[in-house]
Amino acid sequence: MQKSLWLSLLLSSGLFAQKKKLENLVPYVKPIIGTQRMGHTYPGATVPFGMVQLSPDTDTVQYENNGKYNPDVYKYCAGYQYDDKTIVGFSHTHFSGTGHSDLGDFLVMPTVGELKLNPGTADKPHSGFRSTFSHANETAEADYYKVKLDDYNILAELTATTRVGFHQYTFPKTENAHIILDLSSGIYNYEDKNIWTFVRVENDSLITGYRQTNGWGRTRTVYFAMKFSKSFFQYGNRNFSKRLPYRGFWGKFDQSKNFPELAGKQIRAYFDFKTNEGEKIKIKFSLSSVSTEGALLNMKTEIPGWDFEKVKQLGQELWNRELNKVLIEATNTEKENFYTSLYHTFISPTTYMDVDGKYRGLDQNIHKANGFTNYTTFSLWDTYRALHPLFNILQPKRNGDMINSMLAHYSQSTLHMLPIWSHYANENWCMTGYHSVSVIADAVVKSNTPFDVYKALDACVTTARHRNFDGLGYYMDMGYIPAEKNGSSASTTLEYAYDDWCIAQMAKKLNRKDIYSEFSKRSENYKNVFDTSVGFMRARMTDGSFKKGFDPLSTSNQGFVEGNSWNYSLYVPHAPDQLIKMLGGPDAAAKHLDSLFTMELPDKFFAETEDITRDGIIGGYVHGNEPSHHVAYLYNWTNKPWKTQEKIRMILKQQYKPAPDGLGGNDDCGQMSAWYIFSALGFYPVAPASDQYAIGSPAINKATLNLDNGKTFTIDVKNQNDKNVYVEKILLNGKLLNRLYLTHSEIMNGGYIVFMMNDHRR
Amino acid sequence: MQKSLWLSLLLSSGLFAQKKKLENLVPYVKPIIGTQRMGHTYPGATVPFGMVQLSPDTDTVQYENNGKYNPDVYKYCAGYQYDDKTIVGFSHTHFSGTGHSDLGDFLVMPTVGELKLNPGTADKPHSGFRSTFSHANETAEADYYKVKLDDYNILAELTATTRVGFHQYTFPKTENAHIILDLSSGIYNYEDKNIWTFVRVENDSLITGYRQTNGWGRTRTVYFAMKFSKSFFQYGNRNFSKRLPYRGFWGKFDQSKNFPELAGKQIRAYFDFKTNEGEKIKIKFSLSSVSTEGALLNMKTEIPGWDFEKVKQLGQELWNRELNKVLIEATNTEKENFYTSLYHTFISPTTYMDVDGKYRGLDQNIHKANGFTNYTTFSLWDTYRALHPLFNILQPKRNGDMINSMLAHYSQSTLHMLPIWSHYANENWCMTGYHSVSVIADAVVKSNTPFDVYKALDACVTTARHRNFDGLGYYMDMGYIPAEKNGSSASTTLEYAYDDWCIAQMAKKLNRKDIYSEFSKRSENYKNVFDTSVGFMRARMTDGSFKKGFDPLSTSNQGFVEGNSWNYSLYVPHAPDQLIKMLGGPDAAAKHLDSLFTMELPDKFFAETEDITRDGIIGGYVHGNEPSHHVAYLYNWTNKPWKTQEKIRMILKQQYKPAPDGLGGNDDCGQMSAWYIFSALGFYPVAPASDQYAIGSPAINKATLNLDNGKTFTIDVKNQNDKNVYVEKILLNGKLLNRLYLTHSEIMNGGYIVFMMNDHRR
Repeated sequence: MQKSLWLSLLLSSGLFAQKKKLENLVPYVKPIIGTQRMGHTYPGATVPFGMVQLSPDTDTVQYENNGKYNPDVYKYCAGYQYDDKTIVGFSHTHFSGTGHSDLGDFLVMPTVGELKLNPGTADKPHSGFRSTFSHANETAEADYYKVKLDDYNILAELTATTRVGFHQYTFPKTENAHIILDLSSGIYNYEDKNIWTFVRVENDSLITGYRQTNGWGRTRTVYFAMKFSKSFFQYGNRNFSKRLPYRGFWGKFDQSKNFPELAGKQIRAYFDFKTNEGEKIKIKFSLSSVSTEGALLNMKTEIPGWDFEKVKQLGQELWNRELNKVLIEATNTEKENFYTSLYHTFISPTTYMDVDGKYRGLDQNIHKANGFTNYTTFSLWDTYRALHPLFNILQPKRNGDMINSMLAHYSQSTLHMLPIWSHYANENWCMTGYHSVSVIADAVVKSNTPFDVYKALDACVTTARHRNFDGLGYYMDMGYIPAEKNGSSASTTLEYAYDDWCIAQMAKKLNRKDIYSEFSKRSENYKNVFDTSVGFMRARMTDGSFKKGFDPLSTSNQGFVEGNSWNYSLYVPHAPDQLIKMLGGPDAAAKHLDSLFTMELPDKFFAETEDITRDGIIGGYVHGNEPSHHVAYLYNWTNKPWKTQEKIRMILKQQYKPAPDGLGGNDDCGQMSAWYIFSALGFYPVAPASDQYAIGSPAINKATLNLDNGKTFTIDVKNQNDKNVYVEKILLNGKLLNRLYLTHSEIMNGGYIVFMMNDHRR
Repeated sequence: MQKSLWLSLLLSSGLFAQKKKLENLVPYVKPIIGTQRMGHTYPGATVPFGMVQLSPDTDTVQYENNGKYNPDVYKYCAGYQYDDKTIVGFSHTHFSGTGHSDLGDFLVMPTVGELKLNPGTADKPHSGFRSTFSHANETAEADYYKVKLDDYNILAELTATTRVGFHQYTFPKTENAHIILDLSSGIYNYEDKNIWTFVRVENDSLITGYRQTNGWGRTRTVYFAMKFSKSFFQYGNRNFSKRLPYRGFWGKFDQSKNFPELAGKQIRAYFDFKTNEGEKIKIKFSLSSVSTEGALLNMKTEIPGWDFEKVKQLGQELWNRELNKVLIEATNTEKENFYTSLYHTFISPTTYMDVDGKYRGLDQNIHKANGFTNYTTFSLWDTYRALHPLFNILQPKRNGDMINSMLAHYSQSTLHMLPIWSHYANENWCMTGYHSVSVIADAVVKSNTPFDVYKALDACVTTARHRNFDGLGYYMDMGYIPAEKNGSSASTTLEYAYDDWCIAQMAKKLNRKDIYSEFSKRSENYKNVFDTSVGFMRARMTDGSFKKGFDPLSTSNQGFVEGNSWNYSLYVPHAPDQLIKMLGGPDAAAKHLDSLFTMELPDKFFAETEDITRDGIIGGYVHGNEPSHHVAYLYNWTNKPWKTQEKIRMILKQQYKPAPDGLGGNDDCGQMSAWYIFSALGFYPVAPASDQYAIGSPAINKATLNLDNGKTFTIDVKNQNDKNVYVEKILLNGKLLNRLYLTHSEIMNGGYIVFMMNDHRR
């Protein structure tokens, strides 16, 4: 009865998510979570998978100009650090949770009084245009950010649509109101990062232009259109470059004031207004990768009017639509953790095309996305693990389009490679492996394939055979990458082996036995870097010997990237049963895992390890970085699955808190949050491209997954609390589940699963 | 009978020029004329008004990096100096005859033996990839250039279509043949002139990319596609930047060899071949301002195959079609001067759009030229004088399209100004005045208006009322520009006055009496800088007094740009009768002019004057620069027109020779050559925007102008030789002409004019 009622509702109303009355889940989203220290999230305004991320930047620390890494810049991957006392301005693009960075385009700052065109410094805030602020006067919601700029008595409010940032500044009465547009500012900035910037004052309320940078994205251009709700009465600029463009040689115009055609590397422009007490000046600021024409089209299409409240309301409705895909019963704290995590998983990858489907490709030509939404910001070394598998459940259409976007990248690549880490039509080659293949194979294995699967298989195979890429030729010839040839020889060998297994699974499904056979064989290459004499994975030399000076805790010069042998030795996600055998069988393996979670690490470990603070570490288990994300689930392959359940609950508790410092490591474009969502729901994709999810310990009381196919999968957790973390038994659709995994189709077909919890191991 | 035969031919065959058997005039075109010293022409391959100018560069002397002018760079405005002994390579864009420069994009150089990736220096040619050559092994024809590269025993041949350069290199037998693509090279280069360059090796014979520069054109981007006739077997590159792009930080690839995705500021790439004796490797190199896609489209459309000879033949046929617009009877020497001049007048402005009409505009957006050919390279301070008037006779359709291009520029200008000196969608603001209005008014007055005349009038008026531009506000308020406010106060006042007269003439024709009245009044402003006490034009102070320290010969700090008071004082082209009066009446004025042509100049004059050598000067008359180009014709307004005739013949003889050093000054995009064509034909447009041409002394025996309207105007010069330079009488269509001018319609209606010459003044 209940079921048929649902069915008739669905049949009469079309897609479930669009018609059902939405629960207001926005209050549980706390964008401030992760903004302190290592989370590298931003508190500003964005819609789900939006192209614009309009957010305050609290500092503009520079990369050092000699190319030397400045450790201070790392804190500002997302532009904002909770502990800072000043805001420099509001810029339009931000990565969410990355551990290297870029973007921060088009910093806008409203001021009053004396015109200042340099940002000043945190220790002397009044030396520049930045303003002090306090968290008491700050609000961060999904798609809405508000802050009082104390130095100027200006209330700043921000919201956004997919491609347009919307600013609303409430001014005091003044003859000297300024709005600064700083094109020299940026995240991970350094002198000469700006290749070029270009500004046109089209009329007394419209500015257009672009910023072209050479940073993490080597050749990246973002166009903009900026429309004020009120005409400025005068404007000007200063070019802070050491070397001015040629044009400055000619005295035909005073180019510093009311001159509408600017270009150069370090331009800060200002626009002047007179305001009454409480007067609002609004700005619509749209982006495009194509042209200023494209930016204008995006603006006109997405925000035709000036109703700030309405745009904010629509943005929050978009968020509610996405968040309603999982309805949970839990405490408020758990809901804040859960929905903020879900929010963070629905930020990246980001939309990368204009409203007409056009975008600038890898070849710098303008392409059109035909029949799909084009995305960018692929942090694949992170996100193949849990984020894209989560999308295959909650965002199947988008995940298919993300794969279409990856295939478009492949088509535009003269290297004929799928993306490694790509953003804004640039490959930045960050991190190791070719994990696009995992994302693609996972979708193929799970039959979520709104893309050309044969083209996709070709792309995967071609990528995986690119002999010039990062030791791959050696790997293909020798079964491992020799330590002399590559600094990450051991970890990259392990990652290739997993990726190759993914290709094999995909080939199997597509009935390509030749490819299945070739890559199944390659997938066993993890064995070639396992040193049975020590029981760890280990870098190996060309002559077959293992590299001398082995230290399983060290992350330096051991052949592992962003991790040590201890953690990477557990990285055989596609063959955990084999791994358990290599570790000496179930009992020995469980003990081995125990010691990981309980060891005391020497201090030097923290000194030499990137991306990790003590917060992100439990014993020697590093949750703050990705290579270990599947590790707590490995107990399921020993005879002690209750240890998985116990560890998962411990990690959830320790690593995710509803506070600014609530994330123990970089959120990494949603991977850390996706781990949370899966684990809180009680299962996890240990090996994406398998259709199985390892069962852990659900941390909510009830969850309903409202699937795009109209079905629901309900997770009913009985008797769960902080002590009752052990799974006593599981009933799937009323039947006892006698295994430690769920399959993808069991979820997607809809159903009802009951977890009976207790406080003692089974 | 003759006439009706012509008529029937025309009616049966369509446009005259396309069907009539063409005379082969290409042998008279000597592109080498003007390549020594001051002419600043280039010897390479181009088709009429072509976008590609593929020509050898003999040196790559740099502008100084501290922004200081390096006098050596001036010689290389067109990339080639006849006296040089080495060729650095062949680049694809060149200005013809300018006195400031830019371009030189995409230098290509074939070499053999050891790979060298730096150009070396002229004094140590073997230190780099440049090669010695000799003029004995060099041929320069219209659209064809050939040279033996002695160091490598390579024969280099070049030809071009409108948008594609075609290289043919004949190699010796070698295992080590290289073709270098140097993206760091350029004309008027300096460090950081390259904003960015981008190269993709699409496959083993196709390269694409772009070069973005900040030079005379502030934000200029040229895209290319480069197709080899033979596959290279390996390739590589070196980035000579001090600071390498971020991408270099990652060790995923060896980026120096066989790596297909390059970007940076100072890239030199090489492509390696093995060749047999006499083997030809050909390259098609196409340009676009839009995209590499656009460049590929241009290549496929214009040169689908690999037949070098055919492309050359078609290019020369295009030239013959244009050159046949004037058929002359003259000595071979005169024909070489004449047809090389005609060739030089048909090079600029240059086509600036892809085959599909798309081009990158001032706003950096992609525009489409609807119904016209879009042109760039507007050296208007030079070319308004005689080149555009010549086009109104010989290239009326193109001149209309040039005006359409100028109006498109105006539409894209946020300053709402017509072009001053523009190229590649950039305004470089070079020189003074707003002479677009002269070009437009001349076309309107002469009824050659394939453009929106009312929009054009609006554009002229808006431009001429731009108070912030170069002293214009003062000029509008005070009738002159005060010397304290502007370094060119006197000459710019004179130029504005003439331009304003142009606008008035146009307004009169379009029946806009208000505008006619406003600008007629402004056109008399030349009177405000005439100092009757000394009889010269003179810079004037805000208080109305003349600037102290007057020296009519000095070009320094006197208020005149590129000229002195002596020459500029004669610059009232629109009111020569008034000028004559101001100079004391016909007799005094003639004596005044005499003294200009006969004075002996002090040495300091040469030291301080730009753009002028002793070659370009006759007495104090400076033919090598433009402000005096109408001066010899001024005798027509005294009672001694025979002096005009005498002077014209003297100038023609002295200033134009069929030799590398045959031009006494910069050809200035054809203005110097246009002066030659008019003067050799016997008339000259002293005041463009008037429909009158002042009569001089024709230097050919007979000339037939084959007009686009199907009519012919024949100039029959009886008894003309070096001594018989005086015009005894003129018969126009059989009737005695009792005046010193021809009208535009007399020419365009077709007809027959006979000049009876003798050796004594009339």
